[in-house]
Amino acid sequence: MSTLTSMDGNTFSPLRFSGEALELLDQTLLPHEERWQRCHRPEQVAEAIRRLAVRGAPQIGVAAAYGLALAFAPGPVLADLETHFEATVELLGSTRPTAVNLRWALERGRIVFAARPSPADRAATFEWLVRWAQELHAADVATNRRMAEHGATLFPPNARVLTHCNTGALATAGIGTALGVIAEAFHQGKVAEVFADETRPLLQGARLTTWELGRLGIPHRLLADSAAATALARGMVDLVIVGADRIARNGDAANKIGTYPLAVLAARHGVPFYIAAPCSTVDPATPNGAAIPIEERAEEEVTSLFGHPVAPPGTRAFNPAFDVTPAELIAGIVTEEGVVRAPYDLTYNNPSRTA
Amino acid sequence: MSTLTSMDGNTFSPLRFSGEALELLDQTLLPHEERWQRCHRPEQVAEAIRRLAVRGAPQIGVAAAYGLALAFAPGPVLADLETHFEATVELLGSTRPTAVNLRWALERGRIVFAARPSPADRAATFEWLVRWAQELHAADVATNRRMAEHGATLFPPNARVLTHCNTGALATAGIGTALGVIAEAFHQGKVAEVFADETRPLLQGARLTTWELGRLGIPHRLLADSAAATALARGMVDLVIVGADRIARNGDAANKIGTYPLAVLAARHGVPFYIAAPCSTVDPATPNGAAIPIEERAEEEVTSLFGHPVAPPGTRAFNPAFDVTPAELIAGIVTEEGVVRAPYDLTYNNPSRTA
Repeated sequence: MSTLTSMDGNTFSPLRFSGEALELLDQTLLPHEERWQRCHRPEQVAEAIRRLAVRGAPQIGVAAAYGLALAFAPGPVLADLETHFEATVELLGSTRPTAVNLRWALERGRIVFAARPSPADRAATFEWLVRWAQELHAADVATNRRMAEHGATLFPPNARVLTHCNTGALATAGIGTALGVIAEAFHQGKVAEVFADETRPLLQGARLTTWELGRLGIPHRLLADSAAATALARGMVDLVIVGADRIARNGDAANKIGTYPLAVLAARHGVPFYIAAPCSTVDPATPNGAAIPIEERAEEEVTSLFGHPVAPPGTRAFNPAFDVTPAELIAGIVTEEGVVRAPYDLTYNNPSRTA
Repeated sequence: MSTLTSMDGNTFSPLRFSGEALELLDQTLLPHEERWQRCHRPEQVAEAIRRLAVRGAPQIGVAAAYGLALAFAPGPVLADLETHFEATVELLGSTRPTAVNLRWALERGRIVFAARPSPADRAATFEWLVRWAQELHAADVATNRRMAEHGATLFPPNARVLTHCNTGALATAGIGTALGVIAEAFHQGKVAEVFADETRPLLQGARLTTWELGRLGIPHRLLADSAAATALARGMVDLVIVGADRIARNGDAANKIGTYPLAVLAARHGVPFYIAAPCSTVDPATPNGAAIPIEERAEEEVTSLFGHPVAPPGTRAFNPAFDVTPAELIAGIVTEEGVVRAPYDLTYNNPSRTA
């Protein structure tokens, strides 16, 4: 844990651009080891997204933007810039099917690419796309900030908050989505305690969220995902807030596996359940949750832990990475534009919309 | 896994009495290592129960019965048999607060002890209690068998079944409670697939249930506890069946943490949720779930896995070992006497009731 020296300051980002490479803090190794991966080519960015070295829906979008730019970094001659661009969009877009921020960034990148001032000039294209990626990166920081301010208004005094997965600085370019909201509410003196679901199978809550909460000085306890129901049933939680990977037009939201049961239990116990996500997470082209593709990941994520088998050899597993929470269970969606409430008819996230 | 040589036959028990010691298969090391622990004294039995080397509510009851007997095994002179007996009851009874089969066995043992034919004869008392413990042990085998037959009638053809924790041969003296029912239903050709919750934090589902299902040749998939909601929401499950550690008179049931959210989700998706537990699991002296003491176990069970920390040093955890499912969510309770349905008014488990 003490190795995370680059994160000792008040702000940090697990993603930075050096001018020639995208540097990513490998989140699969946290909190035990701080290892930065340098991606010079889009193939490396795609692989980092696929294996979750970089993760969190907003951050994947930012990483993909740099990936598009890197397609035009100095290197072997390109026969045709347009064809190469589209192949890179395809490559990056195929990494994670559920998170829509990724697709949003790629669609937006297509518009930016088409508008480049010197279409035949590779070096100028690179510079053009890098500047755009850097703007997107900076915009995510500002978006986080505004989401946090809107979301903090939802907190009662001395709030006891439950969250799932990791949605903080490690998942975004800024202070985070749901965890950014919690941090801002804590800063305002409104947070008594945070319950952090460990978030099986990859334990982002245990590995990453507790680390961020500790760094922020926010009192917290870790719990098995299935113990959250008991915390809710005992009246130990005042509100639930989580992120999202894609929100359908009707408000149905896909998020890390384990979110949906939390929402059901919160409703049963009269605890408000909120989503915090930037507008880029909304996909108006997805009418409802049933239309959201849910990524199924490798069975080994469930049958092994840290490379050690936990089940007999040959054991099969069911490993959907996300689940869908119906809009009816969502008390509000915190975006950078404000808190949206039911009935939801969400038309954000048009890639041609100005930032 | 291949080391579990003693379990290769058609029947096996993780608990056996050698005449002078209770031998327990250490379940904390499964499925990777088969290590038997020999308990010559009640203190060793108590410690084995406390650290979950022996586990499963019915099996804890049987182990405690042998523990009472071992209090009178050859050894240092005892000043007073009655006092020594009561101290042993106290010792064994303090190990696990939730499972009522333990208390049931101790209360029953008290009656048996009081009825011993040669009250002053230590050796005769030992023999008397050993014979009783062996009868209890054999009765559990028969109880499992009858529960399985009653429970199997609940299964539709080609049932896809979800279960939680481990409730099989490793949790009882016989074929198990919920898993025994599943095994019998499979034997009758009624089971298409079993979904086995991994059961955090101690992974009894991943480590033990998959091993038993594999041995029985039952098709199965392991899943993170929080993915069960998705399996239910997608219509992949026809029924849920789990065990219990204590059932209150009104039918509220305490079972392994993570059971209650399953019951809530099953109800939401119209999937019947059953409990399988012997009558000794019912405690008519506990009026309802609110009166069931819930054991909180060491925080390290959540913050570490197999001895490796998964969270930053100093991270606190909330670790209730059980939760309570309200009777309204339980479609039926499978006992050795038949399937009981709501409204529940359960008066079994009187220790003075004949076996």
